[in-house]
Amino acid sequence: MSKDDNVGFIVKNTKTGEVINVVLTDETVVTGRLMPGYEYGKKDHIVIKLNNGYNIGIKIERIKSIHLISSTNLENKTSSYKNVKYVNGNNHFSNTIRLTDSDQPKILLLSTGGTIASKIDYRTGGVTSVLSAQDLYSSVPEISDYAKIDTEILINEYSENIGPNEWNLIINKIVEKINLGMYHGIIISHGTDTMSYTASALSFVLQNIPIPVILVGAQRSSDRPSSDASSNLIGAVICASRLDYSGVFVVMHSGMSDDVVACHIGTRVRKNHTSKRDAFRSIDVSPVATIKKNQIYLNHEVVSNIILKKRSVEYEKGKVKYQIFGSRFDNRVFLLKYYPGFNPMLIEYVVSQGNKIVIIEGTGLGHINKNCISYLKKAIDLGVLVFMTSQCIWGRTNMNVYDTGRDLLKIGVIPLSNMLSETAVVKAMWLLANESNYTSIIKIMQENISNEIIPISHIL
Amino acid sequence: MSKDDNVGFIVKNTKTGEVINVVLTDETVVTGRLMPGYEYGKKDHIVIKLNNGYNIGIKIERIKSIHLISSTNLENKTSSYKNVKYVNGNNHFSNTIRLTDSDQPKILLLSTGGTIASKIDYRTGGVTSVLSAQDLYSSVPEISDYAKIDTEILINEYSENIGPNEWNLIINKIVEKINLGMYHGIIISHGTDTMSYTASALSFVLQNIPIPVILVGAQRSSDRPSSDASSNLIGAVICASRLDYSGVFVVMHSGMSDDVVACHIGTRVRKNHTSKRDAFRSIDVSPVATIKKNQIYLNHEVVSNIILKKRSVEYEKGKVKYQIFGSRFDNRVFLLKYYPGFNPMLIEYVVSQGNKIVIIEGTGLGHINKNCISYLKKAIDLGVLVFMTSQCIWGRTNMNVYDTGRDLLKIGVIPLSNMLSETAVVKAMWLLANESNYTSIIKIMQENISNEIIPISHIL
Repeated sequence: MSKDDNVGFIVKNTKTGEVINVVLTDETVVTGRLMPGYEYGKKDHIVIKLNNGYNIGIKIERIKSIHLISSTNLENKTSSYKNVKYVNGNNHFSNTIRLTDSDQPKILLLSTGGTIASKIDYRTGGVTSVLSAQDLYSSVPEISDYAKIDTEILINEYSENIGPNEWNLIINKIVEKINLGMYHGIIISHGTDTMSYTASALSFVLQNIPIPVILVGAQRSSDRPSSDASSNLIGAVICASRLDYSGVFVVMHSGMSDDVVACHIGTRVRKNHTSKRDAFRSIDVSPVATIKKNQIYLNHEVVSNIILKKRSVEYEKGKVKYQIFGSRFDNRVFLLKYYPGFNPMLIEYVVSQGNKIVIIEGTGLGHINKNCISYLKKAIDLGVLVFMTSQCIWGRTNMNVYDTGRDLLKIGVIPLSNMLSETAVVKAMWLLANESNYTSIIKIMQENISNEIIPISHIL
Repeated sequence: MSKDDNVGFIVKNTKTGEVINVVLTDETVVTGRLMPGYEYGKKDHIVIKLNNGYNIGIKIERIKSIHLISSTNLENKTSSYKNVKYVNGNNHFSNTIRLTDSDQPKILLLSTGGTIASKIDYRTGGVTSVLSAQDLYSSVPEISDYAKIDTEILINEYSENIGPNEWNLIINKIVEKINLGMYHGIIISHGTDTMSYTASALSFVLQNIPIPVILVGAQRSSDRPSSDASSNLIGAVICASRLDYSGVFVVMHSGMSDDVVACHIGTRVRKNHTSKRDAFRSIDVSPVATIKKNQIYLNHEVVSNIILKKRSVEYEKGKVKYQIFGSRFDNRVFLLKYYPGFNPMLIEYVVSQGNKIVIIEGTGLGHINKNCISYLKKAIDLGVLVFMTSQCIWGRTNMNVYDTGRDLLKIGVIPLSNMLSETAVVKAMWLLANESNYTSIIKIMQENISNEIIPISHIL
């Protein structure tokens, strides 16, 4: 009997949601509710939800038989979880034991929506955002090899709909959960489209957090054979539970091979491909670490050259009350991507509408057509702050090289080195909401707070 | 005596601009005006301008002595050019002969300004745009190994100041020169900042040109030791004179090694680094060719999968009167780079100001916050055309995958596959000026005219 037949055999006797007794080959009995993991997860596992709320994955080859107990309510049944014997070895069945291992790190998986939490809607043919963090966990039972995982749905949005309001919701939830003192790391599942903007927002507000906060997503929905949901999530769990450093990171598939994921600095990562699994790239710096075959490989040169804090060992419930660095965002910030033929009258409008900061994504080292200069000067004279980034993406601004740059500097345009324009917009929104003094905003915009400016260009 | 001492010895007796007799080791005498090439070019050459307008480079080691003839006017002197004997071999001195070789291809080098035509202003410490095409030619005497070169200054602007008006000037000049029927190729020296925008503009208007038009620039001014001006210009001359294909290309330093330059499709290239010499990258496709050690290596897979026409062998003076495809541009086009927190009211303003086309640089596969949809619908209802590209840069839009994309399609937003947003803006300006029928604009925007849409994604 082939593996698929085997799965068919096991599952044909029961339905998702039913409470079952699973008798294993060593006579252990596990009781729980059959989860939908089977439908879109690994074909060699079933996933059942235990009475205590945890899910476990059970390898098909360890199952002797399945018996239906109830098609409705698990809560009144006695879980046979305690009867499960310790199984030594590297197979996934050992998960069932590790759940009681009090040394295992505890992770919170917070769901916000996106492809990692989506599947194909077979009615419309499109992908819709439907899976909860709980479902996600069910579809990748291997994650319980690495940590005990609590799940919570915060919002359910495609990331193009996530902005300053949602950043605040996410931040408030993270702070609330950090201050419980019980988690070794927090994972945010998030759509990939604006993941880097959210990662920047979290990076500025959540400075000096005691644990890692990992954003994770998928370029392909978890019910597609080529999905990166599973490997990305496993990588995120490994980083959240074992990375030595705290801070905000993005964990996504890396280009090197199928099973390598990269851990990027939250302020220096960019989605650089619409559909490839290895779309995310660290810009002007290498990832902090790569995760391969469940091992974390730190990039020591990067780690030693950027602002990174060790994970706090003092961190215990009640001991550290984590303070945040201003959680609001003021969106009176305009990002202007310059292009030839651009009509500079727009600058006047943007100012008239009450915008306080303009980020110019200029050309090359930080340039814009000379016909914009008088408009920018007028804006600056009215108190608007104008900063310069580059549409080149890689490399830093340098406005001292050419006449145009020097003319822009003279009227008060402020270059932002190699800060990504996406990061600059978020940093500006954060400062505008939390600093009333414009001199401070100008100063802090140019300072390196969360690795948004990489001082040494050779960390590649 | 070291080489530098030697140069010093030669030059201390004369000044830039003076007319001199150069007596060579084989007793040949060359008369001409000393060009400033020495100051910023190769240290083992001097460059003199002959009476016939051509410049030649002479290797220092071939020079026996230099005699001042006049500090002013060359024109009344008799050139001793005709006395120069043919020197066989690969040294640069043989240039002097090749100038009379009628089989050598003839190239026009048109200067528009930029770093390749700039040098450090030692007063201000910055770089200013000062060199003419003629000066450029002087600073890289090796280019005369490959072609006879006419030079002409068209404009002298940093490329951030080049827009639709300058595109028209460049196009008119190219058409005028093509219709002379005497050039095998035309090189446009151009600042790197907006070179890809200009390359796109030329690509749409100059369809089916009989010869290659090559844009070339430099990331570092030609008087810096690390300058790429010389290798890029040599690569451009090689492509302009020897590439089998016609069309608009960008020739710039490639990442592989110091002496490799790449020949990119004009509509698919991007400046991806503010300062590195290998900043230019072809997106979603490999370069058409690389040029290494003076040899062109065609990428046959690319060449066979894109729209490329062979260089016209029928092309002779008067025989082919080249027609252009609409040389005007209408800049009532707005490029909107979406970001979280973007205020959709801006769309209303952009429409009220008379813009006719909006190119959205959306997130991921082509998305934008749902709060923009009603504003976009209103714009479309008013007759504005709205197209979608992706800020990911690599990869193509696909608005059928997610709800958001389908909602945008429903209101009439039109996806542009893997067209670069920079290219899309230029194409829109071109169509807006030359097509009064909006249905045609919509149709042609989605068609592949000049490789702005790469149909096969695996040409990498």
